[in-house]
Amino acid sequence: MHKITLLIHCADQPNIIASVTSFMASNDGNIVYIDQHVDREQNIFFMRLACEFSSGIFSLDKFKELFKSTLVEKYKLKWRMYSAERKPKMALFVSKYDHCLYDILGRYNSGELFLEIPFILSNHLDLKPIADSFNIPFYHVPVTKATKREAEQKQLELLEKHAIDFIVLARYMQIVSKTLIDKYPNKIINIHHSFLPAFVGAKPYHSAYKRGVKIIGSTSHYITEELDAGPIIEQDIAHVSHTYSIKDLIAKGRDLEKIVLSNAIKLHANRKVMVYNNKTIIFS
Amino acid sequence: MHKITLLIHCADQPNIIASVTSFMASNDGNIVYIDQHVDREQNIFFMRLACEFSSGIFSLDKFKELFKSTLVEKYKLKWRMYSAERKPKMALFVSKYDHCLYDILGRYNSGELFLEIPFILSNHLDLKPIADSFNIPFYHVPVTKATKREAEQKQLELLEKHAIDFIVLARYMQIVSKTLIDKYPNKIINIHHSFLPAFVGAKPYHSAYKRGVKIIGSTSHYITEELDAGPIIEQDIAHVSHTYSIKDLIAKGRDLEKIVLSNAIKLHANRKVMVYNNKTIIFS
Amino acid sequence: MHKITLLIHCADQPNIIASVTSFMASNDGNIVYIDQHVDREQNIFFMRLACEFSSGIFSLDKFKELFKSTLVEKYKLKWRMYSAERKPKMALFVSKYDHCLYDILGRYNSGELFLEIPFILSNHLDLKPIADSFNIPFYHVPVTKATKREAEQKQLELLEKHAIDFIVLARYMQIVSKTLIDKYPNKIINIHHSFLPAFVGAKPYHSAYKRGVKIIGSTSHYITEELDAGPIIEQDIAHVSHTYSIKDLIAKGRDLEKIVLSNAIKLHANRKVMVYNNKTIIFS
Amino acid sequence: MHKITLLIHCADQPNIIASVTSFMASNDGNIVYIDQHVDREQNIFFMRLACEFSSGIFSLDKFKELFKSTLVEKYKLKWRMYSAERKPKMALFVSKYDHCLYDILGRYNSGELFLEIPFILSNHLDLKPIADSFNIPFYHVPVTKATKREAEQKQLELLEKHAIDFIVLARYMQIVSKTLIDKYPNKIINIHHSFLPAFVGAKPYHSAYKRGVKIIGSTSHYITEELDAGPIIEQDIAHVSHTYSIKDLIAKGRDLEKIVLSNAIKLHANRKVMVYNNKTIIFS
Repeated sequence: MHKITLLIHCADQPNIIASVTSFMASNDGNIVYIDQHVDREQNIFFMRLACEFSSGIFSLDKFKELFKSTLVEKYKLKWRMYSAERKPKMALFVSKYDHCLYDILGRYNSGELFLEIPFILSNHLDLKPIADSFNIPFYHVPVTKATKREAEQKQLELLEKHAIDFIVLARYMQIVSKTLIDKYPNKIINIHHSFLPAFVGAKPYHSAYKRGVKIIGSTSHYITEELDAGPIIEQDIAHVSHTYSIKDLIAKGRDLEKIVLSNAIKLHANRKVMVYNNKTIIFS
Repeated sequence: MHKITLLIHCADQPNIIASVTSFMASNDGNIVYIDQHVDREQNIFFMRLACEFSSGIFSLDKFKELFKSTLVEKYKLKWRMYSAERKPKMALFVSKYDHCLYDILGRYNSGELFLEIPFILSNHLDLKPIADSFNIPFYHVPVTKATKREAEQKQLELLEKHAIDFIVLARYMQIVSKTLIDKYPNKIINIHHSFLPAFVGAKPYHSAYKRGVKIIGSTSHYITEELDAGPIIEQDIAHVSHTYSIKDLIAKGRDLEKIVLSNAIKLHANRKVMVYNNKTIIFS
Repeated sequence: MHKITLLIHCADQPNIIASVTSFMASNDGNIVYIDQHVDREQNIFFMRLACEFSSGIFSLDKFKELFKSTLVEKYKLKWRMYSAERKPKMALFVSKYDHCLYDILGRYNSGELFLEIPFILSNHLDLKPIADSFNIPFYHVPVTKATKREAEQKQLELLEKHAIDFIVLARYMQIVSKTLIDKYPNKIINIHHSFLPAFVGAKPYHSAYKRGVKIIGSTSHYITEELDAGPIIEQDIAHVSHTYSIKDLIAKGRDLEKIVLSNAIKLHANRKVMVYNNKTIIFS
Repeated sequence: MHKITLLIHCADQPNIIASVTSFMASNDGNIVYIDQHVDREQNIFFMRLACEFSSGIFSLDKFKELFKSTLVEKYKLKWRMYSAERKPKMALFVSKYDHCLYDILGRYNSGELFLEIPFILSNHLDLKPIADSFNIPFYHVPVTKATKREAEQKQLELLEKHAIDFIVLARYMQIVSKTLIDKYPNKIINIHHSFLPAFVGAKPYHSAYKRGVKIIGSTSHYITEELDAGPIIEQDIAHVSHTYSIKDLIAKGRDLEKIVLSNAIKLHANRKVMVYNNKTIIFS
């Protein structure tokens, strides 16, 4: 049994659903999941579909070719097709904060995450013992003003060598270079410690304290060139009060960051996220 | 342009999605929405689908016939098909509490609800002025131990006369008879003022106070013969503390009841709810 | 039995709590509620206290004099003292949206709100029937560019004539003048339809849609000269998804607006809110 | 500078607040925190107070004596007085699940928890490596039907030897004996994986799945003899849908369990919880 996941988007047009489902059926595929969305403002059609093929001689490459020649050109589809059994490979970039790292590795260990973690990378050595205790390779790539380009080169090498599918910045605290972003478009997930678009930039809890908000938030998004402005994957909030000091807000925020980032990772790893025009469509 | 909504469920089996979508396409239908769910424990397939037909001579009755002869028997489908333009007719049963009534009528007035309200029925006269101010017919059907059967008869007549599709008990405070339940299966929506299955029965806020819970809830469900045990449509909660008196819990609960009931009404009126084995599948 | 509510703030200093509680005791007052907060950043002490006096000859005016001469000067207190039995008078300013108005009047009718509503004022006539159905005087004060000053004068007269304590803008949709703000500092409550400080200004749901947020919010705050920048009293949020159109966001937002505004009104009417340096301290 | 935390409750009576605050002031104490609650149903007064003493010769024991002879007998107070600097000692009982353990130890390491963890105890060896990696002594005390009494004896010895103040059952999965409960009344914190009182007992997620709830919860409470019926400290919930399998509910529940238990630990460790008649008063 082979199972594939297909994600497509295109201009909205008649018969697109029926055409794709018929194609699957006529190739002995049994559709086991289908969900779709139409963005009425922009007239764009989105679909996620999972399909099983019982044939023992199913070849993903050949099926991709067939799909391409039969439907892609006709409907001008943008598409991605995955073997549903193949776990994506995630690189973890961290710095000195450990709460998101512990949360991710705890879930990873318990089998909650459908992914592999070939390595953890950090500009500091502080979290190496945690990586060690989970038996995950740890690379120390310091970043200084002088070594920035060199560090980036080292990162790219590691990502390529390990055939990384997507990157998670688990409070990495460094601006990621345009080169990296261009090479991994909508594949670098960040956790921002505020309810975006409120409190863009550094020290959002300080700003939240100053403004006297009654709710703090956390936002996971794909990294784009513009700071904290990439497509939002997941957000959550917690209620706070005047009794919270900045330190209290930061502590409360850590709980949000952990869960919001892990949820975003799960959605991405399970290929449930599509991006169009800086917004996400999430088939959950 | 005609638009239909189709809800089906059946034993899970190969090609069911492709068969239905092909059927629509081969009858000049353009599928504009599709969502499905498989209950893996019980091996049941559920689907909701919306389809547009541009043909000026489309007849819902004929199409239903065709669907039945082509697919229903083959796949042993349980199914419902609606003209998506036809608003369902909702009867509102109330007693003396007005908060849910105001909330529903406010939304109704603002055009938020896709339904018609042919009448409001109550065993008391207290809320008649509200019905009047919204220009909705109000029937006073008192219920006493002696007149119970007679009242039920009157209710059934009104429901039939107005071709009511579903009934909402907006804090109606009376046990609904088996006759009514049997005639409107999964079509009588109740709001229970607790987080079911905690605090079944009367006075749930008193029980919540006594147990010292830190969260109160509200549950909207379809009425079945067993008290407060019908399929759950919607639930929500609010955080409370030791400072809440029973009166405070009741006041806080009113906010929950309003929103939970209105959400359940919207889901039902938009034909987004399916029921199987006392549980709901909600295509939202 | 007389009951007073006292709110004070001052520079944080030793013995302030004991001094105030001793003062009450030595004047035959029995403290039935006390709560306090220290802002450690600004070194400011805040306290809310309720006290009962059984003496039949208790005079609030005389007691205020005594409090002033005994404690206010010594500790350089900023203070407010209320008869806890006296309901504050609230003026309701509305425009064309009715959801907040219905919500407030429904609660008012049910006895949930500790306040009086001497009148409702609007720049349009649309909501007059609602005011009428609740038997509350309705004043139509149109606002155009030409009549702006005249309208403001009319508003001030009405507020004075009815001895209004605070004003609620229940989606009033007009910029309130500096004159009014200066006359009612931290006494004009607004509901903003976003999670401030995200999406300041007009059309926040359009901005939220464009940014692709996964959560929308609502904020109730006191009006200050700077737009949407006044002290925040209450906030709440709702989860949304890519399937929400702008219209859907607006509908979902209405539920938030109603509850957030009503909660803010309750906190203010029960004298549970203090303001310092553009932030609120809420003794709930 | 010495700082104490005082918790008292007694029959509600006039002047109790003023008496306590005066007592503190007359002993050169500066009250830095005060909060109180009156249970109007049962007529019980509760207070939490923090007070600083600058005198270099302050003795907690002597002050306790003085407090006792001056106020305790007069007002028939139930009371506890702590040196606010002394961290309570917490024993962690675990079994095979690691998510709560990781969460607690992560917070412990980051300095978020005001407590010491002298040891971790388990009936299995599975989690020993985690205890080791955090450098916390781990005791393996297997529990079988035959060794039950012996195991309990071993537990009591360890608790006594390490002068444990309170016990946390972080998914310990064993019924705790009456002997232990009697020795640590309202000092054994459990995490139950449902929104109590719904789904008491084992396998609550299976029951939640069967009932088709739209919300799952988690409850932290003190252990009493009656199963899952002790005073509730903290609860939280998450929204779920028909798409959640039992496995999904369990995974989602883990997030709740972690945060709810950690919050309960924080409240207890900071002496913010009082218990009366099987309910908690929480001064947060």
